[in-house]
Formats: sequence, C-alpha cells, structure tokens
Amino acid sequence: MITIAIDAMGGDFGPLITVPGALKCLEIVPDLRLILIGDENQISPLIPRNLQSFVEIVHTDQCISMDEKPSRALRGLPNSSMKLAIQAVSEKSADAIVSAGNTGALMAISRHILQTLPGIDRPAIMARLPVKEGATYMLDLGANVDCQAEHLYQFAIMGAAFAAANGHVIQPKVALLNVGVESIKGNQQVRLASHQIAQSEALNYIGFIEGNELFSGKADVIVCDGFVGNVALKASEGVMRLAAEKIHDRFSVWWLRWLGLMLRPFLKSLTKELDPTYLNGALLVGLQGIVVKGHGSSDVQSYTNAVMQAYREVANKSNDHFEEIMNQIEF
Amino acid sequence: MITIAIDAMGGDFGPLITVPGALKCLEIVPDLRLILIGDENQISPLIPRNLQSFVEIVHTDQCISMDEKPSRALRGLPNSSMKLAIQAVSEKSADAIVSAGNTGALMAISRHILQTLPGIDRPAIMARLPVKEGATYMLDLGANVDCQAEHLYQFAIMGAAFAAANGHVIQPKVALLNVGVESIKGNQQVRLASHQIAQSEALNYIGFIEGNELFSGKADVIVCDGFVGNVALKASEGVMRLAAEKIHDRFSVWWLRWLGLMLRPFLKSLTKELDPTYLNGALLVGLQGIVVKGHGSSDVQSYTNAVMQAYREVANKSNDHFEEIMNQIEF
Repeated sequence: MITIAIDAMGGDFGPLITVPGALKCLEIVPDLRLILIGDENQISPLIPRNLQSFVEIVHTDQCISMDEKPSRALRGLPNSSMKLAIQAVSEKSADAIVSAGNTGALMAISRHILQTLPGIDRPAIMARLPVKEGATYMLDLGANVDCQAEHLYQFAIMGAAFAAANGHVIQPKVALLNVGVESIKGNQQVRLASHQIAQSEALNYIGFIEGNELFSGKADVIVCDGFVGNVALKASEGVMRLAAEKIHDRFSVWWLRWLGLMLRPFLKSLTKELDPTYLNGALLVGLQGIVVKGHGSSDVQSYTNAVMQAYREVANKSNDHFEEIMNQIEF
Repeated sequence: MITIAIDAMGGDFGPLITVPGALKCLEIVPDLRLILIGDENQISPLIPRNLQSFVEIVHTDQCISMDEKPSRALRGLPNSSMKLAIQAVSEKSADAIVSAGNTGALMAISRHILQTLPGIDRPAIMARLPVKEGATYMLDLGANVDCQAEHLYQFAIMGAAFAAANGHVIQPKVALLNVGVESIKGNQQVRLASHQIAQSEALNYIGFIEGNELFSGKADVIVCDGFVGNVALKASEGVMRLAAEKIHDRFSVWWLRWLGLMLRPFLKSLTKELDPTYLNGALLVGLQGIVVKGHGSSDVQSYTNAVMQAYREVANKSNDHFEEIMNQIEF
C-alpha cells in the first residue's frame, strides 16, 4: 500500500477540489490510501461510502491562507492542515504529501520538518518543461530568489540526480541558464557556478544555455536562480496568452472564426504546460521526503495529476534512487 | 537635415545589409543624410549614383568582431567603425548612431564617449514589447546583469521619462517585475527598489508585476534587472518557436497542412516582435546621445527599421524632452 497525505484545505477551493481530485486516484491505482487532513465537516460529506475504507480523515480547524507569511505559517499555526500533512510524512505514516496551498509556507514547513538532504542547503521547486522530445527538468522555479553559486551548483546536482533516478538518461546533460553562451557572459554567481559545475566529475555539464533554448530539449536539466526561473516561465505563459488572443483576432472574420476556435484549446493546453504546478504539480526537491505542490487554482483533473505524480514518485522509489545518487556525490 | 552615423561594418553581414538597409531610409524621408563608416571598398560599390549626394563615407579598416571583449573593443581598436560612428555623435557631426554590432562593445564605447545623463550610472537597453493595446517599454534587457536597487530606480525614471517624452501617456504607469505581487515577495534589490520608486513623486508606480503580465499592457514601463529581462524575452521567443512547431505537427495531416502553413508566418512575426532588437532596433537609454542597436542578423528591412527609429528619435526631439524630464527629477 502507498499512503499519500493530502492537505485538503490547501488551494483556492479547498476540499471541493482537493477531495474529489484525490479520490479519483483511488480509481486509477488499486494500492493507494489517502489521509485527508482538514475540516472533517467539509471533507466527510464528499466521500462516497464505497471509498471510505481507503480514506482516513484527520480533523483540524487550522488552515494556512494563501497570503500568510511563511514565518507565521510555520510558528503561529501548529495544527494547520499543511503542517499536519507534512508531519505525517516525517512520522512515516504517509509516503508523500500533496498540497495546493501557500508555496512559501510549504517550502518553510517542509524544510523545517523534513529537513534537507545531506549537502543541500535549500530545497528547490522543479518541474518538467514542455519540450518537443525527451524530458527537460528546470529548477529553481521560485523557491529561492537570491541564489549564490553554491546553491546553483546544488540545484545542478539535484536536477541531474533526479533525471538519472527517473531513468530518462544515464548522464543527464546539465545546462546553466544565462544571457549568452560565451564564458564572459552573465553575472558573477552564474560564472562562478559554471566553473564549479564544470569541475564536478559527477555532472555532464554542457555549459550555458539562453532563454530561447529552454524548450528546445537541448538540455536534460536547466539550472537557474528561482527569480529568473519563475519570471522566465511566467513570461512564456504570458506570451502564449498574447498569441492566443492575436490568433483569435486575426481569424475573427466569420469565415475563419472556426480556425481560431479550433486552435484555442490547443494553445490553452500548451499555456497550461508552462505552469510548473498546473499539469502535474511541481516537485520540491532536496528534502528528506516527497512533497508535491499543486496549483493554487487547480481543477479536479490537475489535482488528480498532482496526487498521481506523488504516487509515481513513491512507486518508482525515485526518491531512494535520488538519495542514493546524491550520497555518491561528494560536495 | 538629420544626419545618422551608420556603423556599416556592424552585424553578421556587414555592409551587404547595413548599406542597402540605411539607403532605403533616404527614399522614405527627404531630410536624411547618412555617414557610412567602414571599409570604403566594400561600401562605395553599394551606393547608386543618384544617392551619392546624401551619403558620406568615412573609411576605416578596423571593425569589432561579434565575440570581441568590450574592454578590448574599447581600448584596443581606436579606429573601429563602431567607435568612429559614436564619435560622430559626440562631435555633433551626426544626430544619432545605429549599429548592429557587438552589444557589449556598443554599450562600453557609447558610455565612454557619450557619457551617461546626469544622475544615471548605467545605460540600459530598452525596447517596446508586443502588447495587445498601447505601448509597454521594458528595461533593462541585458546591458546590466547585476543590478542594485538604485539602478532599478534609475531605470524606472528613464523608462517613465521616455514614455512621457514619446507622448504615449502623461503619467506612465511604472511596474517592477517580480515573482509575485505581494510586498514580501522577491529578492532584496527588488523590494528596496520598490520602496524607492514608491517614494518618488515623479513616478506613477503601480507596484509589482509578474512575468505573465509582461504582454498584458497593464504597465507602460516595466523595470527589471538585465539578466531577468534578457531571459524573460528570450524564453518567450523560445516558447513561440515551440508553439509554431507543435502547431505544425498538429496540422501535419495533408488535409490540414494548409492551416499550419497559414499560421506559420503569423507566429514567426510575433516571435520576431519578441526580439527587442529585431523589429526596430533597441534603444540604449541613459546616454547623452541617441544610440540604436540593430539585430546582429538583421535583414535589410529590419535594419531600415532600426535607422528609421533613430531618425524618429531625432525628428521628435524625444531625447531633448527626455533629458528635460530627467533634469526635473531630483535623484
């Protein structure tokens, strides 16, 4: 059996999305158990009788609002649904935790309760980018907005270890996001990190990569500061919206309108793919436990995807492989 | 008469693009004179007799390669076509300079010869973003990859002054690019800059803006670190390429292929719009003179656009308005 703790109160719509979203997974995989943490009065009515035996409800009144300061979320709310869900992982009563709640709080509390892996100072938000072929993982996507070279180096190791653990490639190609490919380009942190990553025998470093190559599939792992990663993906999302609008306007004459309509769902889905948390949830890597961040405004389907991602991480033991590889690397 | 100095050797194709590109402007506007600086043997054969009276050629053998270090370009090549073109502006023999050459060198040499405006430490690369309605100017796009709060504040002033000088709006809405809109979000530089910009009575500050709002037209001026701005626009460019490919694949069945083909030029043009230098050239703001950076791989048309942008800047006296407004602001 695989047990996943659900922060049922997390996200813009709370249990109305998280509970049905999580329950859907019980129909997909047979060996799944859920611990739903939050307001029992809101949760239990949403659970059909035939599924009750696969679900445990842990009641709490406290939940963390989306605009709560991480520090206050950590100290001020000892029994928040998010905190109890993370505790379930640290106490081994759950194998992974999924939350669509406040990202900063999720980072702070996970780091506090689960601790980071040996050699890792800060966890990072990692997601799979939409690329034409293969898989490209990008980190950090916003957990750390002020990275030193050492942090970028740690992200490179985590990304490479994860890509290898997930069996996509033996020697994942690691690239560092920069404003140019020449060695003189970029700021000091990036140039220092590049030197440090190039030194490491554990990493297959292919050098700098520019923003326009993010989605080219050139690299298996792309490393950047969380500020840059966050803005880069959101900007890509924004321009896809603009493209969708422009296409819609362009084909607004009646005899072409069907064309615009035909393209819209296609562009919409690509736009969603650009949101690291939306499609499958984003992984918080570097922690001694599996934490998946779902999108705040997840619908039932994307919340289901996030829980399934957590399930797969547990089923593939990818975190064990991950930690194995991490332990082989001297920092 | 308006005189524009052309770094004829700048760009991937040198005079073959820059000369016909610049000459085209002579047909568009009657009161334009050109100073073409570079290898006379390559330039003069490209000038039809009927235009010769509007063109002066200044010969030099030295030109700056695209991978030249700015420092060496500045010190090591006293007679480079780029440097002589910039000197023409400082000596008032030209009203503006256009170059499609090495960006770092153009920044360094312009800054050295023309000097920055009072109160401005560093020039910035500014361009107009593709938005649905109105005009949004974004800076810095890569000239400064390591900005302190003070620099971001200066960019805000330059951007606002430029938007006002260009008469798009009286009180341009200034926004600061960040990973979230809440005041606790972002790194220290951005939070400090936000405080500083909010204090300034000269600026109409609307607060933080996220990457997905870059192309929404919400702000007239968007300020960011050059590293972030560069990556954000290039990432947007990259995702448009991905979208174009995916649309092409999606509509690859023979009876839909025409659809993909129909969309391609449209997506291509939008992708080009995302390249700050491509469409009209990017402006180097904060200098005591008008400097326009054309795209390294400009074709004749986009080089013409770059020269026309320089022409408009001179014709509108926007740099005078700009400096006026700048002088009214106490730093």
